[in-house]
Parts: sequence; C-alpha cells; structure tokens
Amino acid sequence: MNAPVNKLTIPTGQVDTGPIPGSRKVYSAGELYPDIRVPFREIALHPSANEPPVVVYDPSGPYTDETAVIDIEKGLARPRDAWVIARGDTDAVDEPRLIKPEDNGFATGERLVPEFPSRSPVRKAKPGQIVTQLQYARAGIITPEMEYVAIRENLRREQSSPCVRDGEDFGASIPDFVTPEFVRQEVARGRAVIPANINHGEVEPMAIGRNFLVKINANIGNSAVTSSVAEEVEKMVWATRWGADTVMDLSTGRNIHNIREWIIRNSATPIGTVPLYQALEKVNGVAEDLTWEVYRDTLIEQCEQGVDYFTVHAGVRLAYIHLTAQRVTGIVSRGGSIMAKWCLSHHKESFLYTHFAEICEIMAAYDVTFSLGDGLRPGSIADANDAAQFAELETLGELTKVAWDHGVQVMIEGPGHVPMHKIKANMDKQLAMCGEAPFYTLGPLTTDIAPGYDHITSAIGAAMIGWFGTAMLCYVTPKEHLGLPDKQDVKDGVIAYKIAAHAADLAKGHPAAQAWDNAMSRARFEFRWQDQFNLGLDPETAQKYHDETLPKEAMKTAHFCSMCGPKFCSMKISQEVRDYAAARAPNEADAGMAEMSEKFKAGGGEIYVPAE
Amino acid sequence: MNAPVNKLTIPTGQVDTGPIPGSRKVYSAGELYPDIRVPFREIALHPSANEPPVVVYDPSGPYTDETAVIDIEKGLARPRDAWVIARGDTDAVDEPRLIKPEDNGFATGERLVPEFPSRSPVRKAKPGQIVTQLQYARAGIITPEMEYVAIRENLRREQSSPCVRDGEDFGASIPDFVTPEFVRQEVARGRAVIPANINHGEVEPMAIGRNFLVKINANIGNSAVTSSVAEEVEKMVWATRWGADTVMDLSTGRNIHNIREWIIRNSATPIGTVPLYQALEKVNGVAEDLTWEVYRDTLIEQCEQGVDYFTVHAGVRLAYIHLTAQRVTGIVSRGGSIMAKWCLSHHKESFLYTHFAEICEIMAAYDVTFSLGDGLRPGSIADANDAAQFAELETLGELTKVAWDHGVQVMIEGPGHVPMHKIKANMDKQLAMCGEAPFYTLGPLTTDIAPGYDHITSAIGAAMIGWFGTAMLCYVTPKEHLGLPDKQDVKDGVIAYKIAAHAADLAKGHPAAQAWDNAMSRARFEFRWQDQFNLGLDPETAQKYHDETLPKEAMKTAHFCSMCGPKFCSMKISQEVRDYAAARAPNEADAGMAEMSEKFKAGGGEIYVPAE
Repeated sequence: MNAPVNKLTIPTGQVDTGPIPGSRKVYSAGELYPDIRVPFREIALHPSANEPPVVVYDPSGPYTDETAVIDIEKGLARPRDAWVIARGDTDAVDEPRLIKPEDNGFATGERLVPEFPSRSPVRKAKPGQIVTQLQYARAGIITPEMEYVAIRENLRREQSSPCVRDGEDFGASIPDFVTPEFVRQEVARGRAVIPANINHGEVEPMAIGRNFLVKINANIGNSAVTSSVAEEVEKMVWATRWGADTVMDLSTGRNIHNIREWIIRNSATPIGTVPLYQALEKVNGVAEDLTWEVYRDTLIEQCEQGVDYFTVHAGVRLAYIHLTAQRVTGIVSRGGSIMAKWCLSHHKESFLYTHFAEICEIMAAYDVTFSLGDGLRPGSIADANDAAQFAELETLGELTKVAWDHGVQVMIEGPGHVPMHKIKANMDKQLAMCGEAPFYTLGPLTTDIAPGYDHITSAIGAAMIGWFGTAMLCYVTPKEHLGLPDKQDVKDGVIAYKIAAHAADLAKGHPAAQAWDNAMSRARFEFRWQDQFNLGLDPETAQKYHDETLPKEAMKTAHFCSMCGPKFCSMKISQEVRDYAAARAPNEADAGMAEMSEKFKAGGGEIYVPAE
Repeated sequence: MNAPVNKLTIPTGQVDTGPIPGSRKVYSAGELYPDIRVPFREIALHPSANEPPVVVYDPSGPYTDETAVIDIEKGLARPRDAWVIARGDTDAVDEPRLIKPEDNGFATGERLVPEFPSRSPVRKAKPGQIVTQLQYARAGIITPEMEYVAIRENLRREQSSPCVRDGEDFGASIPDFVTPEFVRQEVARGRAVIPANINHGEVEPMAIGRNFLVKINANIGNSAVTSSVAEEVEKMVWATRWGADTVMDLSTGRNIHNIREWIIRNSATPIGTVPLYQALEKVNGVAEDLTWEVYRDTLIEQCEQGVDYFTVHAGVRLAYIHLTAQRVTGIVSRGGSIMAKWCLSHHKESFLYTHFAEICEIMAAYDVTFSLGDGLRPGSIADANDAAQFAELETLGELTKVAWDHGVQVMIEGPGHVPMHKIKANMDKQLAMCGEAPFYTLGPLTTDIAPGYDHITSAIGAAMIGWFGTAMLCYVTPKEHLGLPDKQDVKDGVIAYKIAAHAADLAKGHPAAQAWDNAMSRARFEFRWQDQFNLGLDPETAQKYHDETLPKEAMKTAHFCSMCGPKFCSMKISQEVRDYAAARAPNEADAGMAEMSEKFKAGGGEIYVPAE
C-alpha cells in the first residue's frame, strides 16, 4: 500500500492555537443581528488593581479561542454564508470555473500542492445585481457586516467611563462611539471599506477607514525560491495571532491556486492578492504575453475562491513610464514593473486601465474591494514624491470614481520610501485626489541605510502617516530587501506595526486608544508585573526579558525593578507625594509642604516597601 | 603562591576590536592644528560601481583601527593632554582627591572592584580661569577641539559633488559646509556643546547641537542587582562600535568610582554621569541624608576623573513637586525622585538649585558640560506635557543662563513618554525657554503598550523630535522597563537610534545625510549585494539575513533576490526604461514610446540578466 503522493500533511498542531498568555476570548452579540458574535481579547488584571479587564481588538480568529476545534483540513466555520444568502441577491454558481493546470503553474506530481480537501460552494450576484457593502450602504441598508464592525471598533467601551478626547486628527471625523449607522455612512461615502468577498464565509468583518482604528496588513506567500503551503498557513495564523488585521498572499511560482485555497479556508481575516502575479505565471512569466483574457480569467478564479481585495496596478499608464527614467531606483513595484514592461513592449495603454470598467463589473458581483496599486511608488529616499509617483496617484483618483460608479469599494496604496519631511504631502495629496478613499501604505521607510532593520526604519514612517490619516499600514519585516521572512520575522514585523498603528490612534485622539496605555501605566506605578506583561503586545517576550534579570517568582510582585534595584525606586516616592498634595490647590502647596515634611518623616521616611 | 584577590581580569580580547566588515578606518589632519587626526569609517564599493568610497561618522575609537594596539589595563592614548597643556590656563593638581571607601560604596575584599592600574595626572584651571570651550569660543579662539569637530562633521564631503539641499529644518541654520569658525560661533552662542573634560585626554571631540549631525547616547552601568566592571567596559566599546556618540555610566550600588575609572580610561567618546547616584550611595541610599557637601565632594571626584558631562536635576524645585500628585505615574526619574524626597523631608528648596552657582564654578574649572536633568519628565502617555514638566523646563531655562554666565556649556534633557501629537510642543518650548541650548531627549516613547519593544516605540518619537531640532537622542533598549540590557540589547538600542538620528538628519536636509542613502539605493538598483551589506548600519546582520535564503556565494552577485526570485525582478525593467527616455522631454515621450517598443522587442525583450 502506497500513501498517495500528494496527501497534504499540515498537522493542525503545526499552527499556533490557544489564548495569548493572560488573555481570554470573549464575544459580544449584535442588537440588529442578535446572532453575530464579535470577538475581543480580554486582559484580566490583578484583583488589587480593582479595575475592569482591558478589552483589545482581536483579529486572531478562532485560533485563540480555547473552546474552538481547529482542523486545518476542514477549514474554519462559515457563519457569514447565511448573511449573504439572506440578502437574496446572489445565486449559487452551479458550474464554478474548473481548476486548470496553469492555475498552479503547471505543477504536477510531487511538485503539485494538493487541493484543499473540499470545495466550498460558490456564489455570485444575480444578473444585474451589485452585492457590495458600498451598494447596500448607499441604499440605506445596515448589513450584519456593518453592525459587526461597529461593535468591534468600540472595544466594549460603552462599559467604561468616557475617555477625554485628546489628539490632533487633521480633519478626520472620529466619533466618540461607533454606531452601525456611522459605519453605513462611512462606507456609503467611500471613506471606509469592509473587504468581505461573498465567497469568504469564514471572514470576521473589519473596517478600513481613517475614522476607525488604524489597521495593519501582513504579507505572506511563497516564491519560486522557497517556502511551502504548510508554512504559509502557519504564517497566516501566526500573523493574525499577533495582530495582523488583513493578510496578503503574495505567492509567486507554482501552486498559487492551491496554496491560496488553503489560506482562505483557514482565514478569519480578509485576504488580499495581486492577481497579476498569478496571471503572469499562467503565461510562463513572460510579461508581454499577458492578455486581458488571461487576467480576466484569473480575476474570476480568485473571486470565486473568496479573495477579499485585489491590488490592481491600473494607474501605471504608458505615458508615465518615462517619468521613472531619471530615478535612482526606477520602478520597484513588482506589479508596476510587469505592467511597464507590457506597455513598453506593445506600445499600448495598460489593459488594466483600458478594461477598468469590466474589472469593476466582475468585482461588484462578488464584493471584492479594490486596492489600487502604486506601481510607480518610490523605491528610495531619492525618488520620493516625484512626478511619476504623483501622476499615478492622480490616475488612481480618477479610477476611484469609476469604481465607485460601479458600486465597488476602493482603497488606495501608497509608498514606500519617503523621508519624514515628505510624508505628510503624500497623505494630503491622497485625500485631495482620491476623495478620502482609505489610504493603505507600505511603511514608508524613512531611510535606506539599515537593511536588516527595515521594520524599524518603516515603523517610524508608518506611525506618522497613520497619524496623518492612513487607514491601513502594510508591514515591513526585518528581512525586507534581503530575503523571505520566517516566522520570527513575521512576528517582529507585526509587532512593530501594531506599535505604529496604536501610536497613530493615540495621536489622532481615538477615544478607544489611550485606555490601554493608561492601564499599563497604572500597572507600572503599582508594580503589578504580571499585569504589565499581560497588557503588552507580546506578553511572552516581556516576561522573558524580566526573567532574564529577576527570574524568581517573588520578583513578579517586587516593588522595584532591576534598573534601580531594591534600594531606591522612583515610582515609590510618587505614591507618597500623591497622598499628600492630591486635593490641595497650588497656592496651598507651600503651606502644606511643611505638614507633608513632618508626616513623611513621622511615617519612617521609607519609600521602599518590601515585596510581600 | 596566591593570586591577589582583586586582580582584575578584563582580557583585552573580551572587547570587540577590528573594523566593521567592509569598512576601514581613515583619518584626516587639521589645517590649523596639523597634528589632529580625525577618524572616519570608509566603506569601499565594488569597482563596478565606479564611485568613491562612502565616508561615515565614526565614534568607535581606536578599537576599529586594525593597526591600533589595545590594552584595557593601560587604557587608550591621550593625545588631547597636549592640547590642554598648551593652552597654559591649567595646572597639574599635585594632590588629587584621595579615593575614599565611600566612593565605592564601602566595598571591600572580593566585593571591591580593583582600581585601574595606573592613576592619570589630574589638571584643573588655574585660579580664576575658566577653561571651557564656551569661554574660548566667546574669546574668539578656535581650539583644536573645534577644528576637530568641524572636520568630523563634514564627513570629507568637500571631496564629493555638492548635495542638493532638501529638507525642512524648522529654523535651524545648518551650513553647506562646517568650518572651524562656524563651530566656534555655535559654541559661543550656546547652540552647541563639545563635552570634553580637560582630564579626559582619551576623548575624540564631538559636537552636540541642532546645526550638526544628530547624535545618540547609550546608557550602560551596573546596578545593585547585577553586572560587572568587565561587562560594562565591554558594553561601552560595543555601544560605540555600532554608533553611540556618547556613553552614560549610570552605575549604582557598589564600586561606582572604580568602574567609572575603567570606563573613562578606555573611552574615546565623552562619558556622562549622574553624580547624584554616587552621592546617594555615599549616604547609604538614604535620600534625606544627602548634603551639599557630599554632593560637592562627588562632583570634584568625578571632575578629576574626567567625566565629560553631568546630569544635574536642579530644576526639581520644592514648589513643583505637588504638581506631580495627580499624575498616573508620578515621578519616574531616579534623580528627580531622590531630590523630591529630599525636598519633602526637609521642607527645603533643592540644594542643587540653591548651590547652582557653586556647581557652575566647579564645572568651569574642568570643562564639564551640564546636562540639566528633567527630573519631572512624564513616565506615561497620560502625563505628557503637563504642568510639572513644563514648570521644570522653565527653571532649566533660567539655570541655563546662570551656567552660561559662568562660562559653562549646557544641554537640556527632555522626555520620556509623549504621544506623537505632543512631541513638537516639547521642542518648541525648549527652544523658546532655553535659548537654543542643545536638547537631549530620552526617546520619547510614543506608546506604553509594548514592553520588550521600547526601542521601537521610542525610535518613532526620537526620529520625530530629532527632526524638530533635538541634538542628541538617548537610546532606549528592548529591555527598558523590564531589566538591565545585555550586549544584544545595547546593539539593538544603538541601531534603532542610529536609524532615528539619520532619519532626522535626512528630514532636516543635512547636506551630508542623503549621500549615504543614495549610495545604498544605487547598490540596490545595480544588485551589488556586498555593497548593500557593507553600507548598512549592521553589515553582519544584513549578510546573515541574505544568507538565510540564498546562502551561496554566487547569489551575492545575482540580479534578483529571494522576494521575487530569478524569473522576474522589478529593478531590471527600470534599467531598460531608463536607457530609453533619459534625455527626452515629456512631450516627446509618446512619439518615443513606439521607438522604444521596437527597440525593446529587438533586444530580445528580456529583462532578466543571469548572474555571471
């Protein structure tokens, strides 16, 4: 008896499951739609804190729910199918597109990644229907997806005391509290998108827009050089575990179709792709051989699979290509360079531009969101904010309106490599040219001199552009420009970008942001070490670092840290001072000071309280 | 035969020596002072680049000079002694202060770190003389230190073509080219400092000021909990190897004097301390027992040793302490809390404030620079920019003028923890209140939710405040708030801050900054992998990451990377495009496009050039 050659073995145990230390998964139900279950991560604090748990955004899917049964070969449950069917504007597709050899780069035998074990039902809009969240929003309909998003964005803050608004939001319109109606309005005017293909029944809906929490994307995907399907599924789960809000599958080489199917069926976060990469593989990597027909077929293939957003480099127009000639690093977008080659070879306008209306019609039938690609983004500090970049951005603005006319949701991709003083112009121009469609930027890197550390060079730019109004930040890993990220790189990239996104939320004055920082600060002030670890973006690393200097369990309740040691700790004096002057007005302070001095000495003058 | 108990063993081999891969040390001589040798790190490029070497700033001292003989037990050479003596305004101190048991926290026997094997000569200003760079600058004297700094800041850019100025410097006055006279002027008006104690003959002079390259500081130091002298010397060398421009020894606990001596005698970078920490140890850690006499004695002790700058928390005034009562995290500065406790206990104004003029007089006699400490800096996002912080800053401005009146150089310390939208106000107020004295900030951290990653949360704020005008950025390591940094943490902190400082230089439009990025970008575009590694802040890590995916030697000349693989690479198409449209005006482009299309196809239409 021979085992089948292509029986895939992704042991479910290979993906990381179970709660993040110190957290548990909780759910809230809807009011308009009582059956929806919106997930949160709840961090309980030590009883001495006398504070409610801290509730944070949770894109990790069922994997962190200790009650969930995970089986990679079956995929996740599909609660959203019922919502889609209930709308009555879609049909089951009786004869979905067949998987063709070229979909997997003509891989055969041992080289062929096996198909996902079961094929999901495929739906499509009824003839003449537009089944996008944008279309529903314009019609005044609050969908389950919209209520889901509203609940999700509030982080249960209706249960806590109101936060004082403090920030500079550069003209954003962030409400104190997100209602389903607010979500509908933001989607209707194109200021937010909810990327949710009707065929991605597994997805937990989320919003991308400048009036919502800043989101982050993680890129995964194999290449012709390395990687495997099991690793890609593992990385997808891993990236969302640490906070990735969407995941892009940028696979090239063979097996693109089958790898993507495994990823989508196991992903609770929206999945984005660049269909051009697969189209190119179908014509054996020869850019000139690309045709509208091959591209169109690829779109339908991916629409049926359930991809939630497509990067489409339709702004790389023939007339702009010469603008890159004087650049230091030319065209650095893979999709941009493919289309530039095609345009130059044929001396024709890009087929993505000339067929843009047809692309819209296809995407409208499945509710796939546009991520209009920045194929001419700068690839170096020297090339930032140049004529090529902004010519393309203007075209993306024009295409945004075309997409909206077709009822299709749109976001806009942005750079790349930009020194700090040129970042804000990117945001300002994008807002002006693209009618406030959500901006989705890669970094930007603020310097090019640190290969191996581009998660940091770019987190600086990402935090700033997020503050200025970018709705989603595409992560950069330490391996950028050097190699394919491994699992640790994915985590490092996600954490750096969670930092950037949260720093942006804070600076914008998002009413849900500062409560988290304040909980951490109080834990610091009160020496609740375990709470400090648990409240961190990465409790495991925080605890590990503390253990390296003070490994003993008793030190987790110590009223000092290894920086200052037990003899003196700055936090303790503050507790003395606070007790004193709390209620006094400033002009009473001097008189009170003498009293305090006596009290202080009478109390033993000791500020170090030994660990219990 | 018993080995002496306290024979220190810091094998010279324990510190890292030799050049950074791909670099070599070069020196430039002075014109006014032909004997000065200003070091640079020169990165040679592959011959195919046809470019001159890239010259970068090099604070690493003789350790990276492959011709240097390093002996930790002897210390570095002291070329600066001759400059000091030549000025004729100092005397050798015949009877330097004796080392007392309390200088080392009463450590004895095996607990006592041995003294540095030889005692260096000690000098002091002749009676009535002020021997500071500020005093000389005001008198119109260009010192060797000033010419050294001028040469150092130019990075030999007089040898390369002029860089186009591009940046937003918020009112700074960065010249195209730094002359010794410019340095003199900047020091004279207090806008820059050259921290160089006359007793630190080993120091390689450097400038801190907003019209110079942004500098970074690394903190080292043992604590009562952990660390050893050998580790601290090793960390000092290690921190400067990766780019620390100054090093602060923040040791507490026992052996403070002896550890510091080992560090200074082996340090080519300025060393800063917080004398209050040692003074506190001398009174057994009891803040109330501190006296002006103990503090004064400590100042003299450290002045004689050669400490280049002192953090003095003289702005923590009695009347400000109650302003911290409502804070979430109270007082988080160690020095600030020590002084707050002293003030409260005695109900008196801080002795640092009341004796400030005497402190100035002492420091003027050795040219120790003030780093006026921000003892009331915020320790959390919630406490940023509050009344306590800015009340202290106003006092620091007042004290700056007092110090300047005494001829003493001054810089001002700043926060801490500040969300992005509140960062610029810190810089603006500091400039306004402190007469443009250099600002020296710790981060700031832009969020508190990422313990274990505070090098990143703070690099964001550091890059921004550096752009706005901060002259030196104090690093934060990944272990901040959790434990004492080890060697890897020190490197991670330094690299993150070199990124922040360079991103700031770029955004300010510093004329020496962008050449480095451009060299990297050209190396990327031309697939000069080894040049990319060598041009990086950390060549070892860059190469290691590349090796992980493409380990073979041939891949170091490959015209692709593992991200896209060999089949298609975006950089190559750009080289085609560039050849085409380079000289054409935009209106010729369309006509030229047909021609290019033909040429492109005639040339084989291939964009992938195999590795040789």
